[in-house]
Amino acid sequence: MASFQGPLLYEGKAKKVFGTDHPEECLVLFKNDITAFNSKKHAHLESKGSLNCQISALVFKLLERNGIPTHFLAVREDSLMLVQKVEIIPLEIVVRNVASGSLCKETPIKAGSKLAHPLVDFYYKDDDLADPLLTDARLDLLDLVTLSQRMEIKNLALRVNNCLKDFFQEIDLLLVDFKIEVGFNKNGELLVSDEISPDSCRIWDLNIENQEDRILDKDRFRKDLGGLTDSYLEVLRRIQSSNQFSLKDSLN
Amino acid sequence: MASFQGPLLYEGKAKKVFGTDHPEECLVLFKNDITAFNSKKHAHLESKGSLNCQISALVFKLLERNGIPTHFLAVREDSLMLVQKVEIIPLEIVVRNVASGSLCKETPIKAGSKLAHPLVDFYYKDDDLADPLLTDARLDLLDLVTLSQRMEIKNLALRVNNCLKDFFQEIDLLLVDFKIEVGFNKNGELLVSDEISPDSCRIWDLNIENQEDRILDKDRFRKDLGGLTDSYLEVLRRIQSSNQFSLKDSLN
Repeated sequence: MASFQGPLLYEGKAKKVFGTDHPEECLVLFKNDITAFNSKKHAHLESKGSLNCQISALVFKLLERNGIPTHFLAVREDSLMLVQKVEIIPLEIVVRNVASGSLCKETPIKAGSKLAHPLVDFYYKDDDLADPLLTDARLDLLDLVTLSQRMEIKNLALRVNNCLKDFFQEIDLLLVDFKIEVGFNKNGELLVSDEISPDSCRIWDLNIENQEDRILDKDRFRKDLGGLTDSYLEVLRRIQSSNQFSLKDSLN
Repeated sequence: MASFQGPLLYEGKAKKVFGTDHPEECLVLFKNDITAFNSKKHAHLESKGSLNCQISALVFKLLERNGIPTHFLAVREDSLMLVQKVEIIPLEIVVRNVASGSLCKETPIKAGSKLAHPLVDFYYKDDDLADPLLTDARLDLLDLVTLSQRMEIKNLALRVNNCLKDFFQEIDLLLVDFKIEVGFNKNGELLVSDEISPDSCRIWDLNIENQEDRILDKDRFRKDLGGLTDSYLEVLRRIQSSNQFSLKDSLN
């Protein structure tokens, strides 16, 4: 496994990716920056990067144990994750169990409605275009993936949803929706990449009834509800408390 | 056939629909109002209603002759069309041959690019939501139409495109894209409804190279290019000049 942090390969809004001395491995630094509304809103929150790194690591481990391939290899430091190098597909794949966010602005479906079955939305990852929604026909036209890759990605996203929804339910959390990014490694394997954290999921506390109080994800930032790092810490604690993880796991 | 104008049943941005003394027939009045950007831009243009009524009538006749069912029955007066009553499905179905308009804001496809094959986009007809784009999965979730109806609508839209694209090419016009609305009549037949006019199509003059000058449709209004009614009149004249229509036809 790679042993040192090499040159910066890529910097996004919430992460930096560095090369290593291993050609097929990278180090991902989870930043404390948080952005919303295509970067129109921005803040810096101490320990946010570390929390997301730890939460993502545990979620990736859970997926791997359930036979779902991810880019995760190890946590190296507080907010530094060693991952397999992948060719990221410029799509954001959103799976929704309960209507929230843009879905409620773009359809007549009321916020909070449970969907009859999980909805998979593909968005084109492009800040200049503000990550537009893609229909299957537009996706085919853009030629980013083949039809069979599109089906493979959709199936992978639904498998992630099945696994995480059940896991979160066990720790009294409702997985409202989440976004993943995926990519192919050098062997052509499709891997769940990027992060899975309260920055990229909507998670509601099933023990709390009040709508604003039960939000444990980035919507606290979008809606100016405050208490974001406490919420993320609560998510981490719940995950660590699960039977799925031993103390050793959570400390990694 | 119905013989008098009954009560106002519906008023939209560019049309009024009246009942008649025949339960399955309506009269559509094409208004001189023109709107764009979800009514943020609005104007009143003398004779626009009459031109769109005449153009739509000829286009509907052409479709009927090519075996494509429409709601058209007859032109009654200058801007008054007798049509079959249909239950309109709240969708706007857009077929695109060349990239233009919102497609170029929502994908990296450059304006003016010929698409590898016609693209069918479904939009939810709702002014409050600004007519959002629907993916197939969202369309299924909204339960507005069954899966087989969705396929039937898509096929109908592509048949309209095949017919109109070829017809327009013969009269030196390029059919860039167009919007249709469809509905079921009391016998459950799916009919092309609403209108097909330069208000609902993008049409470029193949005899003119300059991009702004060749626009013969509502983009003249959207882009403040002026000369809108002259352009609509040119479209009407070209259609009337086609071998497909005798003088009797065009006068109705």
